Amino acid sequence: MIGNLPDLPPPLVEEAVRRALLEDLGRAGDITTAATIPPDATAEAVIAARKPGVIAGLALAASAFRQIDSAIRFEPALSDGTRVEPGAVAARISGPARGILSAERVALNFLCHLSGVATATRRYADAIAHTHARITCTRKTTPGLRAFEKYAVRCGGGSNHRFGLDDAVLIKDNHIAVAGGVAQAIARAKSYVGHLVKIEVEADDLDQLREALGAGADVILLDNMSPKMLAEAVRITAGAAILEASGGITIENIAAVAETGVDYISSGAITHSAPALDLGLDIRA
Amino acid sequence: MIGNLPDLPPPLVEEAVRRALLEDLGRAGDITTAATIPPDATAEAVIAARKPGVIAGLALAASAFRQIDSAIRFEPALSDGTRVEPGAVAARISGPARGILSAERVALNFLCHLSGVATATRRYADAIAHTHARITCTRKTTPGLRAFEKYAVRCGGGSNHRFGLDDAVLIKDNHIAVAGGVAQAIARAKSYVGHLVKIEVEADDLDQLREALGAGADVILLDNMSPKMLAEAVRITAGAAILEASGGITIENIAAVAETGVDYISSGAITHSAPALDLGLDIRA
Amino acid sequence: MIGNLPDLPPPLVEEAVRRALLEDLGRAGDITTAATIPPDATAEAVIAARKPGVIAGLALAASAFRQIDSAIRFEPALSDGTRVEPGAVAARISGPARGILSAERVALNFLCHLSGVATATRRYADAIAHTHARITCTRKTTPGLRAFEKYAVRCGGGSNHRFGLDDAVLIKDNHIAVAGGVAQAIARAKSYVGHLVKIEVEADDLDQLREALGAGADVILLDNMSPKMLAEAVRITAGAAILEASGGITIENIAAVAETGVDYISSGAITHSAPALDLGLDIRA
Amino acid sequence: MIGNLPDLPPPLVEEAVRRALLEDLGRAGDITTAATIPPDATAEAVIAARKPGVIAGLALAASAFRQIDSAIRFEPALSDGTRVEPGAVAARISGPARGILSAERVALNFLCHLSGVATATRRYADAIAHTHARITCTRKTTPGLRAFEKYAVRCGGGSNHRFGLDDAVLIKDNHIAVAGGVAQAIARAKSYVGHLVKIEVEADDLDQLREALGAGADVILLDNMSPKMLAEAVRITAGAAILEASGGITIENIAAVAETGVDYISSGAITHSAPALDLGLDIRA
Amino acid sequence: MIGNLPDLPPPLVEEAVRRALLEDLGRAGDITTAATIPPDATAEAVIAARKPGVIAGLALAASAFRQIDSAIRFEPALSDGTRVEPGAVAARISGPARGILSAERVALNFLCHLSGVATATRRYADAIAHTHARITCTRKTTPGLRAFEKYAVRCGGGSNHRFGLDDAVLIKDNHIAVAGGVAQAIARAKSYVGHLVKIEVEADDLDQLREALGAGADVILLDNMSPKMLAEAVRITAGAAILEASGGITIENIAAVAETGVDYISSGAITHSAPALDLGLDIRA
Amino acid sequence: MIGNLPDLPPPLVEEAVRRALLEDLGRAGDITTAATIPPDATAEAVIAARKPGVIAGLALAASAFRQIDSAIRFEPALSDGTRVEPGAVAARISGPARGILSAERVALNFLCHLSGVATATRRYADAIAHTHARITCTRKTTPGLRAFEKYAVRCGGGSNHRFGLDDAVLIKDNHIAVAGGVAQAIARAKSYVGHLVKIEVEADDLDQLREALGAGADVILLDNMSPKMLAEAVRITAGAAILEASGGITIENIAAVAETGVDYISSGAITHSAPALDLGLDIRA
Repeated sequence: MIGNLPDLPPPLVEEAVRRALLEDLGRAGDITTAATIPPDATAEAVIAARKPGVIAGLALAASAFRQIDSAIRFEPALSDGTRVEPGAVAARISGPARGILSAERVALNFLCHLSGVATATRRYADAIAHTHARITCTRKTTPGLRAFEKYAVRCGGGSNHRFGLDDAVLIKDNHIAVAGGVAQAIARAKSYVGHLVKIEVEADDLDQLREALGAGADVILLDNMSPKMLAEAVRITAGAAILEASGGITIENIAAVAETGVDYISSGAITHSAPALDLGLDIRA
Repeated sequence: MIGNLPDLPPPLVEEAVRRALLEDLGRAGDITTAATIPPDATAEAVIAARKPGVIAGLALAASAFRQIDSAIRFEPALSDGTRVEPGAVAARISGPARGILSAERVALNFLCHLSGVATATRRYADAIAHTHARITCTRKTTPGLRAFEKYAVRCGGGSNHRFGLDDAVLIKDNHIAVAGGVAQAIARAKSYVGHLVKIEVEADDLDQLREALGAGADVILLDNMSPKMLAEAVRITAGAAILEASGGITIENIAAVAETGVDYISSGAITHSAPALDLGLDIRA
Repeated sequence: MIGNLPDLPPPLVEEAVRRALLEDLGRAGDITTAATIPPDATAEAVIAARKPGVIAGLALAASAFRQIDSAIRFEPALSDGTRVEPGAVAARISGPARGILSAERVALNFLCHLSGVATATRRYADAIAHTHARITCTRKTTPGLRAFEKYAVRCGGGSNHRFGLDDAVLIKDNHIAVAGGVAQAIARAKSYVGHLVKIEVEADDLDQLREALGAGADVILLDNMSPKMLAEAVRITAGAAILEASGGITIENIAAVAETGVDYISSGAITHSAPALDLGLDIRA
Repeated sequence: MIGNLPDLPPPLVEEAVRRALLEDLGRAGDITTAATIPPDATAEAVIAARKPGVIAGLALAASAFRQIDSAIRFEPALSDGTRVEPGAVAARISGPARGILSAERVALNFLCHLSGVATATRRYADAIAHTHARITCTRKTTPGLRAFEKYAVRCGGGSNHRFGLDDAVLIKDNHIAVAGGVAQAIARAKSYVGHLVKIEVEADDLDQLREALGAGADVILLDNMSPKMLAEAVRITAGAAILEASGGITIENIAAVAETGVDYISSGAITHSAPALDLGLDIRA
Repeated sequence: MIGNLPDLPPPLVEEAVRRALLEDLGRAGDITTAATIPPDATAEAVIAARKPGVIAGLALAASAFRQIDSAIRFEPALSDGTRVEPGAVAARISGPARGILSAERVALNFLCHLSGVATATRRYADAIAHTHARITCTRKTTPGLRAFEKYAVRCGGGSNHRFGLDDAVLIKDNHIAVAGGVAQAIARAKSYVGHLVKIEVEADDLDQLREALGAGADVILLDNMSPKMLAEAVRITAGAAILEASGGITIENIAAVAETGVDYISSGAITHSAPALDLGLDIRA
Repeated sequence: MIGNLPDLPPPLVEEAVRRALLEDLGRAGDITTAATIPPDATAEAVIAARKPGVIAGLALAASAFRQIDSAIRFEPALSDGTRVEPGAVAARISGPARGILSAERVALNFLCHLSGVATATRRYADAIAHTHARITCTRKTTPGLRAFEKYAVRCGGGSNHRFGLDDAVLIKDNHIAVAGGVAQAIARAKSYVGHLVKIEVEADDLDQLREALGAGADVILLDNMSPKMLAEAVRITAGAAILEASGGITIENIAAVAETGVDYISSGAITHSAPALDLGLDIRA
């Protein structure tokens, strides 16, 4: 558990780490370690940041060491969501040296990737902290890692959009075209889904925005609008729906977008293009 | 199959795509499409590049559409490994509109990510094309996607390093410290592994390099050496082992590293920090 | 696809049926059929209703026959969601006799169970058809079959509640007690979840209802209230939130509950206690 | 372990519960609990009966809590197979409040369903306790839950029929028709299966019964016969085979059937149409 | 389907072959073939016997080629259970050369192993063909391959014993010791299991045999008895139970054992120690 | 861990044993033990050799008991790779009697099979101990057990060849024929694979050997050559490549092959045709 953040569901963590270990161990396991490290050697190690960023994924790293050898002790030195500077220790590990070396890469691959997502999110979140807007993610995630990348977005101060095709309606231009218009598409969705599902619709211009408002959309996705048009959309909406801006968001333009008064700004880049955060494992003894 | 490149093993492709589809479909499937698109609607679409890059992963995209609805027709317009400019069509898709829309995101998530890896690799490969050095990857890959990211590296003109802990020996500083020296570690590895396994050892200075050469290492990893020291290492080695340079490789310094005469330059960034290549699906009808 | 209803996601159907077949085939397969039916025997059969009800699950039945032998032809004679009388033919099957007999039980086990859920739902839905209320399900489903039972509820004219713990917030009495009150719990939830997640809260009396309304709940679950109190709740709410009644719903009292003006009535019984609909497979030739 | 009853094989329990938890947790886990319950909150709870019945499935409930959080303590207050009255406590649970709330539904879904099967079986078993006949189940079970429902039948005092297509021969009318008669079908089965497999054959009238007896069937299924005809069948058989009555068994007619002297009475309803037993989890602190 | 033999359940075949292919393909697939064989090369091949024996497992071999590339055509030239001499062609294969070469080893590994089991079984079966005894297998099988090895035993003219711990009772010395005697153990088993489960009990001497007969065992396992004692056991039993001889069966002594009049002779060696039958794949074009 | 040998990767062990237990337990578990052994009975047992051989697979046996009941204590009395005589105790087991009896067969099936592989390997290894040659395995392994059989080969003093199609290149006659010659095939492979992959090529005569040497093969497979020709091949090669002899290796001829000076001798028989080592579990109390 990490401060205000939930635990990742343990069965999901165990399964994802198990698969990653099998992928790395292959059919013969860690032949280098088996050849060079005596079975009774022990080691102490730390996982430390080499670059500044935000940590996410300690539970997955812990699981990697535990699944390789339950005698390994893994102690987080901080919690997911913490900002770190180079040199900061994220976790301390001790126990059988073979297991520590064999699990190292899988543990770091999760931790560096997810911390990278958290760090990218944090950077965008900081840039709009003076506004009421929040950064949110998309379904543009790495196949197999969605639950974890969404979690990393929360660790970085972001908010989560849909987790899949099934937990909210998001009507895009293609759906509108086939359905015969914004209002028709919303009406169909309302009659189709249950009462715990929200309906978001994409609006490419202010006319579509007005049509969506009239049809009772919960959330309206303002796609590729200029800050000026976004501000006008905020004025027209007047709180009658949640507004989400998307399209071409960068660290340079996000503040201007947020200052228009929109509620959410969505970015695929924070999940699909975040560089890994550089963290390393250093053997201390 | 793609020119000089191998097919990805079909069972691996099917399984990875199946998991990704289940992740996205969740328990209720694509409720937006079900609500707004008539079951008998058909569509034609293209997948087109929005930015320049190198394509990788068409087989995974194809599988996503086929697994959702075997009536969808997916035709690659080019092969993996091809350089594209914005607007280039990578594939044409036609068939039931519901299936095309439901599979779109999973198909693109694979294709954009792997094309991003191929593009990053290509950029590094181009920067050293005037030398005999080749860019190679590491085990710093995204959990669950190693086979595919390694494939994307090949699509980008790179070469593959180990696929896991089990298919080659890579003796690093921690192994050397416990084993009592470079020569001892190599000797242990030679007596441990079979005759089809290569042995690579990390050398942090020229003394370690000489010790590794004397012990008969197949490959020597020159870690964090300056171009000047690398050139000296090449001279000392004189072809008696394969030399791989690593550590802090960037697009700015890679040419200088390659010009020292090393054989391979390894980079984690081409897999763990490559931004996705921007590709989109456009409905044409 | 079935009229107004979505396809169940094919990968979910395939996987569930595959598991059920393996469960029934065990390690030696259908030894009775292997012993008594020649491999080249063919048969024609129908699946017919023995009791009145509503059909659901034809896609799963079709998959069972297809996975056993792709040479079997399965033709639905009606679509899921159709009301049937005894004798009505739901599907026609022809092809290798061995495969038809071996897949029969798995196909019927899915079809009878899901049709039972649809039939129970339809019965409740019909009883409140003169009101604006809709019958909705719960998470009280059979382990492993949630997606399919929720689908069957829709086939029976019902609406779906949450599919799991992750797609909407439902704050119950235990959460309220720990959080320190209805308003605090709602506030915490609002700050925690993304903008596409609805928040429902349980109210056991009208004071809690008022507190929930004040805190901005999207949906309010009125638990175990009398029709009189429900009517008062409807009056107080005045459309400011969606109202869902639950607790002790029976076919006898559901109309009275619906006539109070609530929007939804939830029932665990339609999934966890619906008797199977009696359908049988008759060999015709 | 439960009195005279076996443990369910632990690997089966773990796997079934793991799948059910993943189904309920989805991709984001229990967002309500994460939002409203502090990570260090603890709770004590009981699982108590709300209606009279027979308990079955405590091992699955225990596994659900343990898999969510190994710090949760689950203590059965009685054993599977015990009859309970409303208010009876079946188990006591204590530990982290988050885990208890997150696992509650999965634990109860297994326990209420399987206790429902045990309760329905017990009711039939009681109705024939004055005879030597026993109630037995069929293969009409819920897909994915066969081993558990069969176990619940035993908890309710019933006996188990085949677990699948592979562990006994059951020759039905369709097999007889193709094989060319009862005797031929039995002869083929005898020569086909091993010496540890029993052979049951369906007889629709007394001639078929005599033919089956002559051919050496181990068990004869008397399908849809009146009590009078069943009594005649018992007289004819005179202990030469085990007799099983089936078809249209209800709580009203089961005693009359049993009193004919048959050995077993099979019922699909005890597995496919048993209403869930109402059990609830009450937080005590 | 193969003459008098059943199809192996297709879902079992597909799953076992899929796992074996993934085991062999690893993470990078067939790199030799990818490097040396053009993607459009085609080939024709045969699978031929190099030694005399009995074929078993053609369905698994077929599946291996089909799963690698559905364009490969696999035609059995004979059916499972057929005796072959060196040079006999078991199957003809044609299509893409890459796929044929990549699937070859997995296909042959199944076919050679299972044909080895069939061949060993056939040898024992032939040796007792002049008696009424039949050779039968045990649970001493290769982990993961039980269904297939049992099938191969049938292909070799043998009969199948239990498929697992759950489909028949086999009371051995350890069970008898704890239960307090043969009769008590049988009585407990009779009251525990359903009416479609047979009960076998081990007898180490003629007193135990008489006790088992008195208690109504279906089958009696005569363990490590001399032919003389076996003959006496047959005389005592006089058809009241099935008799199975086991313990130290070899090709030299099996005829003498069979001539005592026992019904079955069980051998672990036909599954756990059968040498592979030598079959090879020859490219013809 | 076992002396000089590596641990098998624990996740591989757990998964393989889990599958084997599920295969044996089926849907109802160990009904014999459940019927006859009281739940609170305890037992002590040993696993002892009945025949001389080499032990391999204790970690899998240990896992079988632990997965069935974590209260069972399993203590190895020796380590994998140890030679044993009849009567030698390999492990001591104590705890709940039910679990010990239920896990016995799966534990022994792994242990007897893998010890059989180790024993066969040891026999070949001993026969060539006076030479510098080593015995090595092939990919002719039992589907699903490759990692374990390769491990058993090491336990028997052998060396491992490729683990799959992906971890080394092995160019055989069919590849050479299509590629247009030995040298072309090697050149293609060199340009295709990474720098950590070795290249082996088959040579059927001395001309092909010379061509392979000229093309820089790492390893040359001398297929079906007489000892005289092998000796000539050793002379020609003069240490420029590793030489592996294969084809028709038997215990009778292996010494003559080894004495030619080749480096490795590969045998499929040590994995695919090794008889199981006879080990039994004896209850001591």
